[in-house]
Amino acid sequence: MNLEHLRHTLAHLLAAAVKELYPKALATIGPAIEDGFYYDFDNLKISDTDLTRIEEKMRELLPSWTKFNSEEVSAQEAKKNYKDNPYKQELINEITDRGEKITLYTSGEFTDLCRGGHVKNPAKDIDPAAFKLTHIAGAYWRGNEKNKMLTRVYGAAFATKAELAEYLKQREEAKKRDHRVLGRELKIFTFDNLVGSGLPLWLPNGTIIKDEIEKFAVEIESATGYQRVSTPHIAKEELFKMSGHLPYYADLMFPPMELDDGKYYLKAMNCPITHLIYKSEPRSYRDLPLRLAEYGTVYRNELSGTLAGLLRVRMLSMNDAHIYCRRDQIEQEFKGVIDLTLKMFKTFGLSDYSFRLSKWDPVNKDKYINEPENWEFTEKILKRVLETAGVKFMEATGEAAFYGPKVDIQYRSISGREETMSTIQLDFAARELFNLVYHDSNGRSNNEVFVIHRAPLSTHERFIAFLIEHFAGAFPVWLSPVQVSVLPISEKFSEYANKAFGTIRASGIRVEIRETDTLAKRIREAELQKVPYILVVGEKEEKDGSVNVRSRKDDSQKSSKLPDFIKHTRKEIDSREL
Amino acid sequence: MNLEHLRHTLAHLLAAAVKELYPKALATIGPAIEDGFYYDFDNLKISDTDLTRIEEKMRELLPSWTKFNSEEVSAQEAKKNYKDNPYKQELINEITDRGEKITLYTSGEFTDLCRGGHVKNPAKDIDPAAFKLTHIAGAYWRGNEKNKMLTRVYGAAFATKAELAEYLKQREEAKKRDHRVLGRELKIFTFDNLVGSGLPLWLPNGTIIKDEIEKFAVEIESATGYQRVSTPHIAKEELFKMSGHLPYYADLMFPPMELDDGKYYLKAMNCPITHLIYKSEPRSYRDLPLRLAEYGTVYRNELSGTLAGLLRVRMLSMNDAHIYCRRDQIEQEFKGVIDLTLKMFKTFGLSDYSFRLSKWDPVNKDKYINEPENWEFTEKILKRVLETAGVKFMEATGEAAFYGPKVDIQYRSISGREETMSTIQLDFAARELFNLVYHDSNGRSNNEVFVIHRAPLSTHERFIAFLIEHFAGAFPVWLSPVQVSVLPISEKFSEYANKAFGTIRASGIRVEIRETDTLAKRIREAELQKVPYILVVGEKEEKDGSVNVRSRKDDSQKSSKLPDFIKHTRKEIDSREL
Repeated sequence: MNLEHLRHTLAHLLAAAVKELYPKALATIGPAIEDGFYYDFDNLKISDTDLTRIEEKMRELLPSWTKFNSEEVSAQEAKKNYKDNPYKQELINEITDRGEKITLYTSGEFTDLCRGGHVKNPAKDIDPAAFKLTHIAGAYWRGNEKNKMLTRVYGAAFATKAELAEYLKQREEAKKRDHRVLGRELKIFTFDNLVGSGLPLWLPNGTIIKDEIEKFAVEIESATGYQRVSTPHIAKEELFKMSGHLPYYADLMFPPMELDDGKYYLKAMNCPITHLIYKSEPRSYRDLPLRLAEYGTVYRNELSGTLAGLLRVRMLSMNDAHIYCRRDQIEQEFKGVIDLTLKMFKTFGLSDYSFRLSKWDPVNKDKYINEPENWEFTEKILKRVLETAGVKFMEATGEAAFYGPKVDIQYRSISGREETMSTIQLDFAARELFNLVYHDSNGRSNNEVFVIHRAPLSTHERFIAFLIEHFAGAFPVWLSPVQVSVLPISEKFSEYANKAFGTIRASGIRVEIRETDTLAKRIREAELQKVPYILVVGEKEEKDGSVNVRSRKDDSQKSSKLPDFIKHTRKEIDSREL
Repeated sequence: MNLEHLRHTLAHLLAAAVKELYPKALATIGPAIEDGFYYDFDNLKISDTDLTRIEEKMRELLPSWTKFNSEEVSAQEAKKNYKDNPYKQELINEITDRGEKITLYTSGEFTDLCRGGHVKNPAKDIDPAAFKLTHIAGAYWRGNEKNKMLTRVYGAAFATKAELAEYLKQREEAKKRDHRVLGRELKIFTFDNLVGSGLPLWLPNGTIIKDEIEKFAVEIESATGYQRVSTPHIAKEELFKMSGHLPYYADLMFPPMELDDGKYYLKAMNCPITHLIYKSEPRSYRDLPLRLAEYGTVYRNELSGTLAGLLRVRMLSMNDAHIYCRRDQIEQEFKGVIDLTLKMFKTFGLSDYSFRLSKWDPVNKDKYINEPENWEFTEKILKRVLETAGVKFMEATGEAAFYGPKVDIQYRSISGREETMSTIQLDFAARELFNLVYHDSNGRSNNEVFVIHRAPLSTHERFIAFLIEHFAGAFPVWLSPVQVSVLPISEKFSEYANKAFGTIRASGIRVEIRETDTLAKRIREAELQKVPYILVVGEKEEKDGSVNVRSRKDDSQKSSKLPDFIKHTRKEIDSREL
């Protein structure tokens, strides 16, 4: 069974059903996609509740679709066929311009402009229980925001009913893990129209998570010799011309602000200002490597329509760093970054990753800085580091940046998406652009300063969206906004509960106390907030100085002396247990 | 002795000396100021090295200045006198426009347009050893940046030579404490023309200080029930219209950036976005007080010519917070803020402060929000809180903001300047502007939400400039970028030195090791960097596992077992000893 043909056929069937039910709707384009198909319509005002009706109509039509007839026609003929449909007219013109043939495909009573690729006998080849219309969405004609917004109907389709059921189950699961839904429920972040698109407001719970991640990064980096700097969010046009961001990157930057002494831009990258810190004093060969880390913030002028939750935002924060090193230090520094990244991943419990070494293309040199010796030298080093680290990696020729080879870390998320989690980038262009030098052991000025750009955890926005999905909101204790919830069985035990609360708080654990409402309701609320430890205290607990611990991790309940519980939990937090 | 008359007379004498030495210079205005006098000239190109010559000329002329003659003249006559001097012409026009009389004052051979106020007999009344020209600076005519830049010559003058000497000594001391000089020497911050004016780049040492201050604030705030949030640096025009910043405050804000979905501004205040966090979920009477703290960053479009070191910048960071409380909670919350502020000041060793309660003017109500009952009620509360706290305070009628009374904390710096360190502001306008409400115990919506704005340590930029001056760069151990420096006497003891270095570092103390150069040079360098503890290690130390501790605080030297030294220093750091 060719799934693409199956799905493409269902797109036709969908259009046929819509045309029957909504004769004024204009069919435009409808391809097969991963997991299913869609079709875009103009003049179709429907909501998700109408999908069942359309789906039924599809099933009603299916038995009459026993074959496909194809017919080659002239442009004139085709246009006559679609005289009321400007979208198909536009498509016909384009096909003609490309000098291609125009074909119409018919099954049942429905004919569509099409290049082919269907199942032979839809009535026989398609299981009517193995497809489902899933949702509708707005989509610009040809994906261009200057065009009209059309109505897109999505469907899922598989060879068998069982496969569809499995897919829909996964989809439900993914919805439950949706960072936008959980972000709201767990009060992690919010958006506000008055602030604008792509600008999350981090609520107290989200700020705790963000701060814990950064605290972890600071800890691990300061142990490995990084120093922290803090740089302005705006800088003059001249700097971004020097770095090459202007004019090439201008579209992705926020527009300039004209002050009395020149044009200022919100920075789209941290590196240019960090390079100026490198240059703020003379550096000797003994000062290298210099590892400058920053909790950096950059700004990207994304179109408002493309912004979605935390995955695409306009202000991005990250644990960023730039390493300045000598030629003979590249290997050791690159290895250090790989080690640090693996250590970080391990702490967050991320294991399904692989590396990709992106190299230049020695055959097609124009796209790359013309330093063949450095390309060969550094690519060899990067490869050796990956081999020594014993990680899974592939090589990709022609995928490097202009200024040097890089290593991408690919991660497969819990819902199966493969994404680039982060990139470690070697840069041998910055030293020329910024005239980065050091005094070597002979006192001579040496321009061989290599820069490594790295932000192992991506941006905080993207990484937290990822963590929410990964943990389905049930963060490890060290990341949980509320780590412990204390619930007295009744008012009678409020005093003891408050005493326990105070003791736990004094130990630096994030604890809350819930005293109003019924015990059952309070337990349920704490569970919904995914609090790792719920402590219920009553007569028995008061008497023997204990707490009844309900653990989220293993759904267990057990009694524990308060000091033991604190000691155990502190240890779990301090060691950042999963 | 009237010091103002003395100083004003010396301004005349200065102009006379300049005219003798530089006949083409145009005298403009020259008043008495605190500690001395100045005079502004056009057409005068001199440097600080020329001041001695001018000063000598002043002393040469002084004996001939035995009296002042005054003469009332017509505008026409006066203008004839200054036919080549457009500045004096402008002044004459203004005097005439005000309907005042024009007087010329002459002493010796020098005549100036003047309203009087001199010593009777300069030759007798002025001690030629009790004044000194101190420096020159550029100054716009009438202080307006659109006018021409003039040359201003400053002088210091006192009744006696001894007083002058004392003043100059103080001035030298202040120079040594100048945050710009020390900031460079101690590698705390730097500026770069490519980044622009008023935008400090925090170097590793400065970032440590900034982070330590913020860590302290987080600690003290989380112990008193604050929660942290983190908000975007930009927001839409609509928000700042709602808050009233636009259009009234537009000049101080950065210009807007037009994106595809509207105009965005860099925020000049944190409060509007914090109010939106308050509104992001329904609040009940039980949720109040809600104390939302943030490491906030705001932007001010200051003119480039007015920016100076860290004291006036364009991007400002601060430990900011907003407290939302009910009417019956104002007193407790205001008291909490005063207590927290005093605790912070104590930790930084700041003791020379006083409070000012700024109230509305019940006679002149137009400038204030029209809620007489709230004004009276809250001013009474604020006064009672200050009285109970037992702090020095004064009351200032008519000094409140539009939206509520405030308490300013005035601080006298080590060089004698009195400054407003910070402000605690009560706000009963925000609740109307932002429709801030809570559900009271009867389930009804209540709009009586009072907001307290507070940033007890001013901005980080201003506060660190202040701390540098206050400590003359010798920060308490907990704030010192490098807390301990380990110096082996010679290479032979490098191994032991490195072992000690490692042990100290593992205990979380910020330690460095200096191994190259002579011991004397290394000691001197560590001293220049104001490292609190310098540990010299040699044969004796290696043998008995000790270190020789040179303490910056009391200039002492003593031997200490390494674990004892670490224990003592850790305690000093953890308790934030001065």
